[in-house]
Amino acid sequence: MDASELVEALVAGNRRALARSITHVEADSAIGREVLRQVYPRTGRAQTVGITGSAGAGKSTLVGALAREQRKRGRTVGIVAVDPSSPFSHGAILGDRIRMQDLTGDPGVFLRSMASRGNLGGLSETATGAIDLMDAAGFDVVLVETVGAGQDEVEVATAAQTTVLVANPGGGDEIQSMKAGLMEVAQIMVVNKADLAGADTAVAQLRALLAIANLQSWTPPILKAVARANEGIEEIVDAIDLHQAHVRSAEHADAERQRHVRGQIIDLARAALHREALEAAERSGSLQALVDSVAARERDPRSAALELLDGLRRSWASSNDFDA
Amino acid sequence: MDASELVEALVAGNRRALARSITHVEADSAIGREVLRQVYPRTGRAQTVGITGSAGAGKSTLVGALAREQRKRGRTVGIVAVDPSSPFSHGAILGDRIRMQDLTGDPGVFLRSMASRGNLGGLSETATGAIDLMDAAGFDVVLVETVGAGQDEVEVATAAQTTVLVANPGGGDEIQSMKAGLMEVAQIMVVNKADLAGADTAVAQLRALLAIANLQSWTPPILKAVARANEGIEEIVDAIDLHQAHVRSAEHADAERQRHVRGQIIDLARAALHREALEAAERSGSLQALVDSVAARERDPRSAALELLDGLRRSWASSNDFDA
Repeated sequence: MDASELVEALVAGNRRALARSITHVEADSAIGREVLRQVYPRTGRAQTVGITGSAGAGKSTLVGALAREQRKRGRTVGIVAVDPSSPFSHGAILGDRIRMQDLTGDPGVFLRSMASRGNLGGLSETATGAIDLMDAAGFDVVLVETVGAGQDEVEVATAAQTTVLVANPGGGDEIQSMKAGLMEVAQIMVVNKADLAGADTAVAQLRALLAIANLQSWTPPILKAVARANEGIEEIVDAIDLHQAHVRSAEHADAERQRHVRGQIIDLARAALHREALEAAERSGSLQALVDSVAARERDPRSAALELLDGLRRSWASSNDFDA
Repeated sequence: MDASELVEALVAGNRRALARSITHVEADSAIGREVLRQVYPRTGRAQTVGITGSAGAGKSTLVGALAREQRKRGRTVGIVAVDPSSPFSHGAILGDRIRMQDLTGDPGVFLRSMASRGNLGGLSETATGAIDLMDAAGFDVVLVETVGAGQDEVEVATAAQTTVLVANPGGGDEIQSMKAGLMEVAQIMVVNKADLAGADTAVAQLRALLAIANLQSWTPPILKAVARANEGIEEIVDAIDLHQAHVRSAEHADAERQRHVRGQIIDLARAALHREALEAAERSGSLQALVDSVAARERDPRSAALELLDGLRRSWASSNDFDA
């Protein structure tokens, strides 16, 4: 099937066409890029929700509970799992897979796990693409599960409209460390495992961090949940609905859409630039010469890095294969 | 003081010159860059050790214990804390600061905390610079504490010769998720808080992951410790010494140095490229035009990102301010 046929089948609800399209996007193939280009005008209908937080915070269980609650509300759900420890992804623990069986057997749910493609930033490109494909395929809700608070995860979070940050009681150190990355990009905070001691302290810590955060028109609610026992889940879905209504409201839609699109373009440009720069440097052989001279302490790594970039610019300046 | 004066004073052991130089590097000033260029030939003597792992793994306590053990062995210690939750850094909890007082009062210890400079990759540039400055200032050991397993942290880890990965018992999910980032860049694994239940399971999980990792000439030891009670610390310092002997051995020194320098150059080039590309895009106004057309769904974010890069290349091609 070529790109147009895939898009036609995918938009008509064909699951195999959707799965195949995601595979093309993961491989960064020409068909994958063309499919993404063609489906883009059909996106924007789905609620896209990122779920992030440290490994062990209970994100997978929460994603499962949110998916079930969304199904109860009559909505279809696409799930993208980019957390390598997630039971939704390939490194699954059998027990977890069994707990997820009601979801994987439900025709109103589509699950896709995503390998982290190493350090080149491919994760956000692929996850953004998978979200768009599920959106165009007609899913009412797309949940994206990711892990951690590094650059990759912030980018994946940026790919969704609503980001839910999952913390735990007793994670004081962890909550402190969130300042660095995710506080500014999360729209809903959840203290999961709230039946454990210290839940109220965790809520208070999050509240203190929010008080000093640079908030725009939306103030993130801080909710308690016990995802394992399905407690607090309705409230989270209600909060997601509220945030979605906010980003789509006449008053805020333009600014929110600009913010979201700007983040996406910058992240995708950055990822492409990474890959291209590294490939060009390896190909030209200039990297090896620089490595040799720094290894001999003839020059320092910083000036070598700048020279590498100058070489790259020069090669771009002398080539004329600009596509646009 | 100009760069040469700073370097002279720093190499002579002047702490204020060291502190001031690090401030220049953090600000990415011309003096900072010149200081780094001048000190580089004087680096390479110190043991540089990165300590990484999730928030709450006990990294700060371990860094404190390692510093005390190194002091017992008669070595001076520089500490760079880039973990926002570290008691060494500005967001300190009072109790932790008090526990560290014996270190901060010791003239053989130099502490420097480092603000995470946001998402532009500046962290690894600054941390690499601070390590080089402490090395040139004559510290026998430089410990770098960082958090998490994202891109930034992998880069900071790459900046040190020996990276120690800290995990905890009961962190099964967490250990699973390490596959993605840090297994390949860590040379020593520590299960801290090993007096808690599940320590042997955590060791077994790490061993299983190592068995499938792509190891080179060094096999990372997996050690148990209770940093809080100073248990297992001597063994960790012994393992660091062993790894340092390995990377400096006649057989491995060249390959290790090439690997280390290559990682540094690529990371520094990537960080500089990020910053430059974003600045150029904002300046040219082309970003806003692209954001508008994607927001209107006239084009998709991926092709907008590629066009942004083309514009950047074209502006480089038409300018002639290449410094080299």
